[in-house]
Amino acid sequence: MVIIMENGATKEQIEQVVRRTHDAGLKTQMNVGEQCTVIAVIGDKTALSDTPIESMSGVSRIMPISAPYKLASRQFHEEDTVISVDGVKIGGKQLAMMAGPCAVETTEQIVKIAKYVEASGAQFIRGGAFKPRTGPYSFQGYGESALKMLATAREETNLRVVTEVMTPHEVGLVGRYTDVFQLGTRNMQNFSLLREIGRHGKPVILKRGLSSTIEEWLLAAEYVLAEGNPNVILCERGIRTYETHTRNTLDLNAVPAIKELSHLPIIVDPSHGTGIRSYVPSMAKAAIAAGADGLIVEVHHDPDNSMTGDGVQSLFPDQFNQLLHDLKQIAIAVGREI
Amino acid sequence: MVIIMENGATKEQIEQVVRRTHDAGLKTQMNVGEQCTVIAVIGDKTALSDTPIESMSGVSRIMPISAPYKLASRQFHEEDTVISVDGVKIGGKQLAMMAGPCAVETTEQIVKIAKYVEASGAQFIRGGAFKPRTGPYSFQGYGESALKMLATAREETNLRVVTEVMTPHEVGLVGRYTDVFQLGTRNMQNFSLLREIGRHGKPVILKRGLSSTIEEWLLAAEYVLAEGNPNVILCERGIRTYETHTRNTLDLNAVPAIKELSHLPIIVDPSHGTGIRSYVPSMAKAAIAAGADGLIVEVHHDPDNSMTGDGVQSLFPDQFNQLLHDLKQIAIAVGREI
Amino acid sequence: MVIIMENGATKEQIEQVVRRTHDAGLKTQMNVGEQCTVIAVIGDKTALSDTPIESMSGVSRIMPISAPYKLASRQFHEEDTVISVDGVKIGGKQLAMMAGPCAVETTEQIVKIAKYVEASGAQFIRGGAFKPRTGPYSFQGYGESALKMLATAREETNLRVVTEVMTPHEVGLVGRYTDVFQLGTRNMQNFSLLREIGRHGKPVILKRGLSSTIEEWLLAAEYVLAEGNPNVILCERGIRTYETHTRNTLDLNAVPAIKELSHLPIIVDPSHGTGIRSYVPSMAKAAIAAGADGLIVEVHHDPDNSMTGDGVQSLFPDQFNQLLHDLKQIAIAVGREI
Amino acid sequence: MVIIMENGATKEQIEQVVRRTHDAGLKTQMNVGEQCTVIAVIGDKTALSDTPIESMSGVSRIMPISAPYKLASRQFHEEDTVISVDGVKIGGKQLAMMAGPCAVETTEQIVKIAKYVEASGAQFIRGGAFKPRTGPYSFQGYGESALKMLATAREETNLRVVTEVMTPHEVGLVGRYTDVFQLGTRNMQNFSLLREIGRHGKPVILKRGLSSTIEEWLLAAEYVLAEGNPNVILCERGIRTYETHTRNTLDLNAVPAIKELSHLPIIVDPSHGTGIRSYVPSMAKAAIAAGADGLIVEVHHDPDNSMTGDGVQSLFPDQFNQLLHDLKQIAIAVGREI
Repeated sequence: MVIIMENGATKEQIEQVVRRTHDAGLKTQMNVGEQCTVIAVIGDKTALSDTPIESMSGVSRIMPISAPYKLASRQFHEEDTVISVDGVKIGGKQLAMMAGPCAVETTEQIVKIAKYVEASGAQFIRGGAFKPRTGPYSFQGYGESALKMLATAREETNLRVVTEVMTPHEVGLVGRYTDVFQLGTRNMQNFSLLREIGRHGKPVILKRGLSSTIEEWLLAAEYVLAEGNPNVILCERGIRTYETHTRNTLDLNAVPAIKELSHLPIIVDPSHGTGIRSYVPSMAKAAIAAGADGLIVEVHHDPDNSMTGDGVQSLFPDQFNQLLHDLKQIAIAVGREI
Repeated sequence: MVIIMENGATKEQIEQVVRRTHDAGLKTQMNVGEQCTVIAVIGDKTALSDTPIESMSGVSRIMPISAPYKLASRQFHEEDTVISVDGVKIGGKQLAMMAGPCAVETTEQIVKIAKYVEASGAQFIRGGAFKPRTGPYSFQGYGESALKMLATAREETNLRVVTEVMTPHEVGLVGRYTDVFQLGTRNMQNFSLLREIGRHGKPVILKRGLSSTIEEWLLAAEYVLAEGNPNVILCERGIRTYETHTRNTLDLNAVPAIKELSHLPIIVDPSHGTGIRSYVPSMAKAAIAAGADGLIVEVHHDPDNSMTGDGVQSLFPDQFNQLLHDLKQIAIAVGREI
Repeated sequence: MVIIMENGATKEQIEQVVRRTHDAGLKTQMNVGEQCTVIAVIGDKTALSDTPIESMSGVSRIMPISAPYKLASRQFHEEDTVISVDGVKIGGKQLAMMAGPCAVETTEQIVKIAKYVEASGAQFIRGGAFKPRTGPYSFQGYGESALKMLATAREETNLRVVTEVMTPHEVGLVGRYTDVFQLGTRNMQNFSLLREIGRHGKPVILKRGLSSTIEEWLLAAEYVLAEGNPNVILCERGIRTYETHTRNTLDLNAVPAIKELSHLPIIVDPSHGTGIRSYVPSMAKAAIAAGADGLIVEVHHDPDNSMTGDGVQSLFPDQFNQLLHDLKQIAIAVGREI
Repeated sequence: MVIIMENGATKEQIEQVVRRTHDAGLKTQMNVGEQCTVIAVIGDKTALSDTPIESMSGVSRIMPISAPYKLASRQFHEEDTVISVDGVKIGGKQLAMMAGPCAVETTEQIVKIAKYVEASGAQFIRGGAFKPRTGPYSFQGYGESALKMLATAREETNLRVVTEVMTPHEVGLVGRYTDVFQLGTRNMQNFSLLREIGRHGKPVILKRGLSSTIEEWLLAAEYVLAEGNPNVILCERGIRTYETHTRNTLDLNAVPAIKELSHLPIIVDPSHGTGIRSYVPSMAKAAIAAGADGLIVEVHHDPDNSMTGDGVQSLFPDQFNQLLHDLKQIAIAVGREI
């Protein structure tokens, strides 16, 4: 349930309500909105049955949240969440554009690609240091040395860094280098990793699991939010279906669905969502038209020689440049800008 | 395989090649393109092993078609197919907009909705006379009397009519009233129905089967094309996946995929593709941004009282009007117009 | 809803109840069970609100049927339905075994295979005369001449014939030759075909659609039952999932599910359910252990030269013979016999 | 690739081959079979192009392994792997039976259930101490205190313990209490967890991911095997499909598939595979008939009051007892015993 405070409720009134709730053995999280403050009460609400919260001064009304996720729900947080990464906003009017290679290979490679994508108008460089690979004999990423290469790319550009973290005990290490964590599709329900990121506090891109429902995805976000980290960016990256012509089936229905059910920003990955370079621009445009808050796109200047075999879905830098150019008008058509 | 004639090949040269192919016991279909004529050879090409087609005068070259569909493939027909329905073109620069109720209920209802959708800028009225229903006790449509109501709606507006045909022996009946057949998702592999429509010749909207691959869909189109009817419009309407929040998963990846593999026009049905009214506008925009040639949308002035239970996915007329208005800029951004 | 008559209700009492129901504009179907007679009332039951059925003499009680299918439900027909095909029972203690090639190719081929499968203990020869093929250029079956070959195979053995019918106007033709219709996976929701078979009356094997839910499957059966043909045998033949190692995913969960929800017999097709010859025996055993009433298995003496490319899933005759031998003990373990 | 040594190859010859392979910078793993020793070579085999392994003494022949998994493949290890857990064998003639509640709740509960399942003939007690839950507010298991309760249950019976481990840093803790790790469906591609278990060495039940292909599953096993732990037991527990009547779709095709592709034992979980108590016995029988090496079944004496909501799929103790009794004959029919 959520407790919606009156428009002009005082700090003391809010603290009083929170104290009473804590006294009943429940936890709270607060959303200080423009209109009013909303207090989410987490735990078994029957503990409050003897506490007349509704009649406390400053309380406007009490509302049950029917969804199993609370902090991720639109009911708790009516306005869109906007996440700021060193000044760049995700979830606001400006679209967030993230691009880079599947894996960080060399300093030269990542700096070169970073400069390309910055010149095209992106605000984030992405690249894998720790790579989740289906088999143990595949290239697994260069680890910390790749993180250092990403740091160099950040220094030589004005970009923020996005990179994946795969295991709870590496959250601290990756967190020292990255601006935004990426939590990959196979780890969407790695609950100890979700909690660890929740405790760390830096923003996280939470990719949808390969066969996760929208509800399970929001519940995974809830694990991060419940630890006190409100900076969750959802990322639709294609789901697994019977169709094999494309690598995955990009489920853009998820964009309006998330916008209805939640306040969290959602971006789209058309590279993994299709697995086919020539389909990426069409689906990138579709994503923005559907209302996504940004894109994360694979870009490589020499995809045939990339180390992960994902080159077939990477755009060439000039294709990415053209794409951002073409997206400008679509963005305007849906009230956004690049 | 296809035989590609030289740019200036004469009628006699073409006829000569066709004759030789028929003499070998094979069938042909011809695509007279702007640049050159292409002859598709259907059947076991080893029958031609003793016939030196390649060295015949007027022949430029011979090319195998690797896909199992031939006439539907981009290799046979390099330019986009544009289908004309009484002057309205589908597959060209102008987007095709089709709208109307799930089922035709009364003359008053269908005329009222037809006038609304025409005023918004659509060129086609859609509505079901024969309704495929999962169970035998559900409303099955008003049949021929509904076809007559559709004819009245056409007379009272400048719209063309789209309506579903469900069984081979009704192709003639439905064909007397409709401008475009609709072949529903459950019938995508109803081969005798596909053939009958192929022989009839009127344009057909071929909806993708609920769990059909893109290749199976193009092979279904091939059944119509092989009977001599080139007027096939593909329609992506959502596939069945594990996700239950939406009625289906709208697979917009299919749009760039079809554009690459085939020359046939493709439209999108965001109503069945989502099953949720409030998601329809977002996905309609996404479809156009992805490169679709048009939309087919459920519109009803009184959806709560529609006879099929599909009201929850129907737009109100003013929502449809707003949608077409909003789509104008998206259309321009991808080089199209409404 | 169903009206359950008292144990000793008289013919007159039953007729009286049926008459009243018909007078209210509703249809009925009757199940004369060992214990009591059950009358299913089809249509809007509010039409009966002024008719005190419950207090009529001979009526035990009235029960709503919550499932959308009525005649197919266990509530309407508590005992298992046993279908007799010229003396061979399907759904009783004895398991029904059906085997044969994908397509009927020559009289010699089908007679040879029929003799093999009869010697192994099967009671039915199956083989395709009309073949549903994904593409128009594939072999489509030999049609009526193949039906005649099947008739010859029946004459030369003691087997009953199972063969597929694909379109409503061929029901009469196929019905003249076959003992049991097969309705294929792509036609599970071909409603006019279902109705035509319902009117014909001969038993039908209703294969589950490639992506049909169990409820949709029972509703398809309801189309046949509602026309007055009670002889529906359900057949689980594998569903379409993301897994590509096997041709389909054989959903044996459907066996206990159907046994719970319905009274209709259910058989299993392990050939299409796996698509791999070496997996067929394991899954055939699993099907019988799960409670299936029989099997339909592809058997071919020369699978490498079969005309449909389905040879890879066909058992050799000696493998089928071994399978039936091995199944005997499994059958006993679940209270059945071969 | 694998190097197959001659039947009578000496220890020295084998060591010589291993040394040469290591000298070339490659890793090896050895399978000492009854007939001959097989050496798997892991890494880029072109490193061996100048080393004439084939002509070394004691070498019979060299064979490439086409599958991406090596140590898990049948080619590396022709005989079935049999894993011994404190004297109880998994993968041999005797079937392995594991049963217990979803979550360990109290010492009394787990001891009570353990005694029941032991009396029925099972060799393993299962129960969750750390529970992976979709949402953060659900009961997450009692952790180490539940591990201690399991240890008590082991002491009071002759059963071995199976329990889930969810995160790499808890492998040591859980390993101190359990006989067999369980790695759950959501963690099938938690690569650091797989590696940690690989280093630990105790047997692990590797549940198939909710939407994992058979190949991905074997590659996950390969992560454990490659760390030197050969004790991997695969567990089919149902995959996610469009069908919602059952909780998951139990893919028994996986049983013959794994038996063909791999030497690892495979057990089946009919409780999660159906999610419906009344279907569990049928699917348990089907699993054994299909060739599975054992079962893992949820059993609870008071399922309506279980703490996880999984009670609906738990058998009552007397149902489990009846099941094991009924399975005896099925086991014999497929050459196994209980």
